[in-house]
Amino acid sequence: MDALQSEIWIKGEKCSGKLTELAPFKGILKSKAALYDYQCQEENRELFRYSHPDGKGEYGFSYHQPLSLEDLINRRKATQEWARMSAGLMGRSPDYMNTLLMALGTAAPHFAKDRQEFGDNIKRLYERARDEDLSITHTFINPQVNRSMGHYLNSSTVTAAKVVEENKEGIVIQGARLLATQGGLTDELLVLPAGGPSFDDSYIFGFMIPANTKGLKFLCRESFCYSDCTFDHPLASQFEETDSIVVFEQVLVPWECVFVYKNLEAMSTVDEETGMYAFLQYQSVCRQIVKLEYILGLCEMIGDAIQIQEYEHVKLKMSEIINALEIMKALLLSSEVNSQPNRYGTVIPASTPLKAAIQYFPGVYPRLIEIIEMLGASGLISIPTQEDFQSEIKEDLERYLQGANIEAKERVRLFRVAWDLSMSAFGSRQTQFERFFFGDPVRLQAVHYNSYPMQPFVDQVQEFLNRIEEN
Amino acid sequence: MDALQSEIWIKGEKCSGKLTELAPFKGILKSKAALYDYQCQEENRELFRYSHPDGKGEYGFSYHQPLSLEDLINRRKATQEWARMSAGLMGRSPDYMNTLLMALGTAAPHFAKDRQEFGDNIKRLYERARDEDLSITHTFINPQVNRSMGHYLNSSTVTAAKVVEENKEGIVIQGARLLATQGGLTDELLVLPAGGPSFDDSYIFGFMIPANTKGLKFLCRESFCYSDCTFDHPLASQFEETDSIVVFEQVLVPWECVFVYKNLEAMSTVDEETGMYAFLQYQSVCRQIVKLEYILGLCEMIGDAIQIQEYEHVKLKMSEIINALEIMKALLLSSEVNSQPNRYGTVIPASTPLKAAIQYFPGVYPRLIEIIEMLGASGLISIPTQEDFQSEIKEDLERYLQGANIEAKERVRLFRVAWDLSMSAFGSRQTQFERFFFGDPVRLQAVHYNSYPMQPFVDQVQEFLNRIEEN
Amino acid sequence: MDALQSEIWIKGEKCSGKLTELAPFKGILKSKAALYDYQCQEENRELFRYSHPDGKGEYGFSYHQPLSLEDLINRRKATQEWARMSAGLMGRSPDYMNTLLMALGTAAPHFAKDRQEFGDNIKRLYERARDEDLSITHTFINPQVNRSMGHYLNSSTVTAAKVVEENKEGIVIQGARLLATQGGLTDELLVLPAGGPSFDDSYIFGFMIPANTKGLKFLCRESFCYSDCTFDHPLASQFEETDSIVVFEQVLVPWECVFVYKNLEAMSTVDEETGMYAFLQYQSVCRQIVKLEYILGLCEMIGDAIQIQEYEHVKLKMSEIINALEIMKALLLSSEVNSQPNRYGTVIPASTPLKAAIQYFPGVYPRLIEIIEMLGASGLISIPTQEDFQSEIKEDLERYLQGANIEAKERVRLFRVAWDLSMSAFGSRQTQFERFFFGDPVRLQAVHYNSYPMQPFVDQVQEFLNRIEEN
Amino acid sequence: MDALQSEIWIKGEKCSGKLTELAPFKGILKSKAALYDYQCQEENRELFRYSHPDGKGEYGFSYHQPLSLEDLINRRKATQEWARMSAGLMGRSPDYMNTLLMALGTAAPHFAKDRQEFGDNIKRLYERARDEDLSITHTFINPQVNRSMGHYLNSSTVTAAKVVEENKEGIVIQGARLLATQGGLTDELLVLPAGGPSFDDSYIFGFMIPANTKGLKFLCRESFCYSDCTFDHPLASQFEETDSIVVFEQVLVPWECVFVYKNLEAMSTVDEETGMYAFLQYQSVCRQIVKLEYILGLCEMIGDAIQIQEYEHVKLKMSEIINALEIMKALLLSSEVNSQPNRYGTVIPASTPLKAAIQYFPGVYPRLIEIIEMLGASGLISIPTQEDFQSEIKEDLERYLQGANIEAKERVRLFRVAWDLSMSAFGSRQTQFERFFFGDPVRLQAVHYNSYPMQPFVDQVQEFLNRIEEN
Repeated sequence: MDALQSEIWIKGEKCSGKLTELAPFKGILKSKAALYDYQCQEENRELFRYSHPDGKGEYGFSYHQPLSLEDLINRRKATQEWARMSAGLMGRSPDYMNTLLMALGTAAPHFAKDRQEFGDNIKRLYERARDEDLSITHTFINPQVNRSMGHYLNSSTVTAAKVVEENKEGIVIQGARLLATQGGLTDELLVLPAGGPSFDDSYIFGFMIPANTKGLKFLCRESFCYSDCTFDHPLASQFEETDSIVVFEQVLVPWECVFVYKNLEAMSTVDEETGMYAFLQYQSVCRQIVKLEYILGLCEMIGDAIQIQEYEHVKLKMSEIINALEIMKALLLSSEVNSQPNRYGTVIPASTPLKAAIQYFPGVYPRLIEIIEMLGASGLISIPTQEDFQSEIKEDLERYLQGANIEAKERVRLFRVAWDLSMSAFGSRQTQFERFFFGDPVRLQAVHYNSYPMQPFVDQVQEFLNRIEEN
Repeated sequence: MDALQSEIWIKGEKCSGKLTELAPFKGILKSKAALYDYQCQEENRELFRYSHPDGKGEYGFSYHQPLSLEDLINRRKATQEWARMSAGLMGRSPDYMNTLLMALGTAAPHFAKDRQEFGDNIKRLYERARDEDLSITHTFINPQVNRSMGHYLNSSTVTAAKVVEENKEGIVIQGARLLATQGGLTDELLVLPAGGPSFDDSYIFGFMIPANTKGLKFLCRESFCYSDCTFDHPLASQFEETDSIVVFEQVLVPWECVFVYKNLEAMSTVDEETGMYAFLQYQSVCRQIVKLEYILGLCEMIGDAIQIQEYEHVKLKMSEIINALEIMKALLLSSEVNSQPNRYGTVIPASTPLKAAIQYFPGVYPRLIEIIEMLGASGLISIPTQEDFQSEIKEDLERYLQGANIEAKERVRLFRVAWDLSMSAFGSRQTQFERFFFGDPVRLQAVHYNSYPMQPFVDQVQEFLNRIEEN
Repeated sequence: MDALQSEIWIKGEKCSGKLTELAPFKGILKSKAALYDYQCQEENRELFRYSHPDGKGEYGFSYHQPLSLEDLINRRKATQEWARMSAGLMGRSPDYMNTLLMALGTAAPHFAKDRQEFGDNIKRLYERARDEDLSITHTFINPQVNRSMGHYLNSSTVTAAKVVEENKEGIVIQGARLLATQGGLTDELLVLPAGGPSFDDSYIFGFMIPANTKGLKFLCRESFCYSDCTFDHPLASQFEETDSIVVFEQVLVPWECVFVYKNLEAMSTVDEETGMYAFLQYQSVCRQIVKLEYILGLCEMIGDAIQIQEYEHVKLKMSEIINALEIMKALLLSSEVNSQPNRYGTVIPASTPLKAAIQYFPGVYPRLIEIIEMLGASGLISIPTQEDFQSEIKEDLERYLQGANIEAKERVRLFRVAWDLSMSAFGSRQTQFERFFFGDPVRLQAVHYNSYPMQPFVDQVQEFLNRIEEN
Repeated sequence: MDALQSEIWIKGEKCSGKLTELAPFKGILKSKAALYDYQCQEENRELFRYSHPDGKGEYGFSYHQPLSLEDLINRRKATQEWARMSAGLMGRSPDYMNTLLMALGTAAPHFAKDRQEFGDNIKRLYERARDEDLSITHTFINPQVNRSMGHYLNSSTVTAAKVVEENKEGIVIQGARLLATQGGLTDELLVLPAGGPSFDDSYIFGFMIPANTKGLKFLCRESFCYSDCTFDHPLASQFEETDSIVVFEQVLVPWECVFVYKNLEAMSTVDEETGMYAFLQYQSVCRQIVKLEYILGLCEMIGDAIQIQEYEHVKLKMSEIINALEIMKALLLSSEVNSQPNRYGTVIPASTPLKAAIQYFPGVYPRLIEIIEMLGASGLISIPTQEDFQSEIKEDLERYLQGANIEAKERVRLFRVAWDLSMSAFGSRQTQFERFFFGDPVRLQAVHYNSYPMQPFVDQVQEFLNRIEEN
């Protein structure tokens, strides 16, 4: 991954040199490398790798097209095993975007309906990524300049990336997109429409280009990896992904990288045809379940360390975590049991339970984080550093920060993980990330209601009313 | 069912004459009869009836011992189809207790471990009930005299039913139990221990006796069926089950009706051996899902009647109902997919997701009822009666109570159902019933936490901590 | 009050004969009579009555124009003392509307601005009501036909009461209004605009007419007073007020009863000029505080009766009630301490804390009712009737329903009050009534935000930002 | 303040040199200095300073003994004006502890009851602190080793600070206390019992000693002031107070610094005699109100910057903030209006509304922080640094991060403040700090219930029941 040469800006400077040696990036790049290493270990082959039917090679699980329920379940197992490497904290582990690309690539005929070459392009892009095990980022929201309902009517202030020119080499994009997580740290950038004004087709395009394409800039927010000490900042030092604004400065996207272009019909049916949202949701729900498992174990260890498990309110809080875990697991299972192949043979996890899961999780996750804070209490404030434990005051800390059945340093290590999950800048950003993972929760819920099939339930009540009337 | 001759007291009077003609009981007895009629219809045979392997006859689904996942799924379908007859409002439809008896009866060897005849008894009791399609009530809580923790140490005020004598005919029970729903309206009464002091074996017994056994009295609360007009009180008039205190006045329980007696070991392992709680929870969750379906349909119809669906907060509330439904369905599915046969071959639905369901539901149900109230608003107050619609003021009502796409009388009918589900004495008792269905929610959650296997989660976090340390 | 001769319809019949002898009305009319009796007792004179400055007589406190903070505090004391007669359950005790009339009548010059006689009319209406100690109802919402935003643009389905004719005797009203509580049980009916389309001045009018005016019909909902036994239904039997639809069938409102007419300006400034909403809110908050006091005492007695006060979750729930009470009391106090005289010398309680109170209460009240249900648990289901306690089963009840320090009958009496406050049809209607007392809570909160002066807070933050920048 | 020479440890090093130049401390010390400067400005004299009755000098407001309601109100105004300097973020601004010392010092006769010199000591300590305008920290919780109920019975693992020796110079303290905010950054350290085992009088003592007393060590947690750039970390860079463990290593406390010693009676009546908790709560509530004002203004500015105020759910969230502010203000007002002088003439704010406030706030504050996060959404993630705005990418940022009516840099400045209040490590610690400000909320609420006078409410209900019975 040292070859990455995207234009990345952070703290006012353009990055040069090896990213794997730069403070804000080395932790996450090391953690990503560990994923790939783990995938390649011989003993994990069955779980993580699959052979192409035509025997052309062996590929990572996330590029695999599931053709049966069993395939889907294997995908879940591999996804969760990868997620365990980061306790579910890596929101953009490579399988997330790979899965999206698989969903698009295996539905190539859909894109070919508009122009044959678009179908060829997405197929080729998918196969190349699969063959080379590329990693990908994407960017899905427009600048937040103005959220009012009527805003898009007034295009003069619209700054969202759009097509400004079309020539024989390709299309030219100008403008920005927000919040590419791991922006600049992946091989490729995949771009799909981000909503916006449907009447203006300059905003309708889908393409994938190398992250180091000319004119592409990734402007990172401040890094929340304030220390690379894994004792002090155990999570941020390993899993801080950074988020970035993607600026398209007259970026030429070659035609062979394009698979949707100014075709509202092609775009608006893309989910229906590819099951892409179901796959993205499936990957996330797999990962979020792993996160819940870690939260549950962590809270149990906190409770044990300071012996608070006998309190009624602690039991109730633990029970809340358990129920959240069981609910998410059940919804995931339901998406598998009710999965269906689409016309391209891809087995798509059922959408309805996944939609419930992605609405349930953004509500319950912040509550569980709050539970960590409530259980940890002052223990989340009394957090000395590794250097303290290596200094003269070591003995004091060992005496006064010991837990019930745990030595002081182990106790502080544990509480530091809890703190970094809930209260550090890294942890809070995780909460915000989960809260808005699939977009504004208020809008998501409204859409969910609008699309839910209500008639059978209405009919059932109507029949019931009719039966009463006859009485 | 006219033959029922239990001693039932209501409003200070002992019931005499046909129960099916007495105001407080005729609605529910008619609704129960409708269940049996529906079960017996030829076209429902496959769904509702099964043949005994030895070909001795055909029985109701609820007595069926599930021997495969398919059996379990069939059971769910039948349970829910029955539940639809009452929109899930009959908390003690006969299948609830039948299922319990099936779980006990098919595990007869467990009871035989203590005394061989106890095993024979439960088998015989089960088979007779199955053959005759009997209905059963039970009673599961001790009088609420004093809930303080130390209370049971002071037995002078304990008034709970207990064994006071043992002779060659059987055991003699004296005392009371609370809250037998449909008490006196079933053929049999099944009694199991209600918790209480484990050191005193006078409280440990399990038996089933006819509801009209000498000395057995059912003291009903006030009936909430204030009118038998199905327009005015559409739900109470049909589904008000009544609850009763069961008084045992020197009740002789013949030995052949006893299957547990003063054996703490037999009792404390009964759930583990029979899966009885899993089956009870499974039946309830099936029914509660049906209830949620009706709530969803009802709210959609209310929203349509007064055209409030475009409001954001209405969409959010509808979305809450949808998610509750999806969550409950997924947990039920998970209990099926993870079901396991026990040593007697009975396929037991998995307990863990069911426990999550029975903790989730008592919290979410009152909230959904509140949503009905919030959506219905003043429409739940403006509820004239059928007589009003048959009087001179009919025209006024038709004009002023019309809905957007619905005539006034239909609109009032709809809102009356909503009112009877949420705000009538019948509806509030439903809410209380669901809230406490499996006992005090606070205690339930504490027990859930205590019994949940935490070690794997702790181990997982510990490994994660170890990995960090090695970094 | 026997002279009341309004046209009241209930259960399909027009009432005839003495209302005080009719089942649905006799309880509330007796309770209202008790208020007047209490007011007239010599020892309560100072609290409840005041002399007119010109010595013309003595009047009830609710008609008194407060001219000082002391007057306001006296008003609060009297209001709350009256409210204690019904534990705060009488939402339309006479002082509610009297207070409104006082606010209007003492601001007569405002109404005179449009037409001199309108000023004279409101003054005369107020003085007559005061002199004769009349009681009044009002009706404040339009039929719920269609709540969608665009509805009022399509007037063909609008059924709200409006002016259809104007002649030299007065104005003629046709249409309906919803939810006149105690409709038909008061001397007078006061009508003000109910929102609606501001562009159509047929909906703009303010008048007060006798409740038995020709063409005026009160169509009552079903009465929730299902029994007049004060043991069985202790609250409904006394305080069920009924709600009614008011139908105006070509009602001629004489000019001398009109004080606002087709003048949007006069109407839209009426609150600003009279402080009417502040007074209505003040009266309600006074009453709601009394209700909270009773809930607190009741829950303490329940806790004591079954000895559950030692449980942590019970303490937390009790603490919630205490805090709600303290918060409401503090907001009321703040409205007094910050009260200001208006241009007519009337001391108006401060609006801002009252607005917070009327938003806080509809949220917290249903929660406190839920707490009653959670604490009462099965005790709210095991509720035999007075007749049971007078029958043969008396002894059983006395044994099995006794509480820790309380006899069975007293315990059932207590739990019956709790049930009638929370779970009976009467109790649920109380909850709905409080939830929507001042209108749709969602709209109320939006309006509250829109009208709150934000600039000082923005300025304060801006200054803070500026200070940081200078650093 | 440069003279501070306490033994402070941070990141494994003992601090040396000027604290005002050390990164973790310079921000907060500058902010504290600004408070003193502001207090000393001539134009603020009336608000912030008072003359001693005997004309001996002029003192800071926080040492003033309020002798009238007016004095109390002046105290509130000064407290809030100081709090505005830090938007309420300085939890231990000097007035907090000064107020405590005032409460103790003005009740000197109480301490003299045990030993005359204890009364003299507290009086002298108070007067000296007042005369020299000293600043003070305290430390109020014992090490969190083991929170289980039975723990204190097993003293071998107790590590809390206690008296281990007594000699003619004074008492010797050994052990630790947790969470001295600003530990080491104040002139003095005041210590009072932290709960714990009442049967062991080694834990009962009250004293105040210089922070640089021999044997006293302050072990700081990691500083959350990760940058001193006021654009990037606008709040942490100014107001990060640090928290520390206080270690007493054979600390000799001279007798003249002691005012309570091994006298349980003196200790357990200290609040009743001095009103110390009421004063501490009063100061906090004053400050918390200021914090709410800033949150309200900040959210309004966020809403304006991205034009989301028209959304219903945004209005509801804004309304929640408004109501929280109004409720807190009303409770504070109530504590003033109901204040009472104690036997030493000190006017004590009423305790009951303050107790409601300190229970309400820890619940509502985290919710309001969540509202900031929900409104800010992705804007709280897209936060480049000041260096970015000074680099080549400045123009990109200016274009793509502009708000509706606000330039990009101002918008980022605003969102950075919001981020630092809610999501930075500093902000999360603020939330935790407010949540546990007066101790474990669960315990606080239980105590609140236990101490609330319930009898009047029970009596009122009993009278009501009696009245019903008579009917």
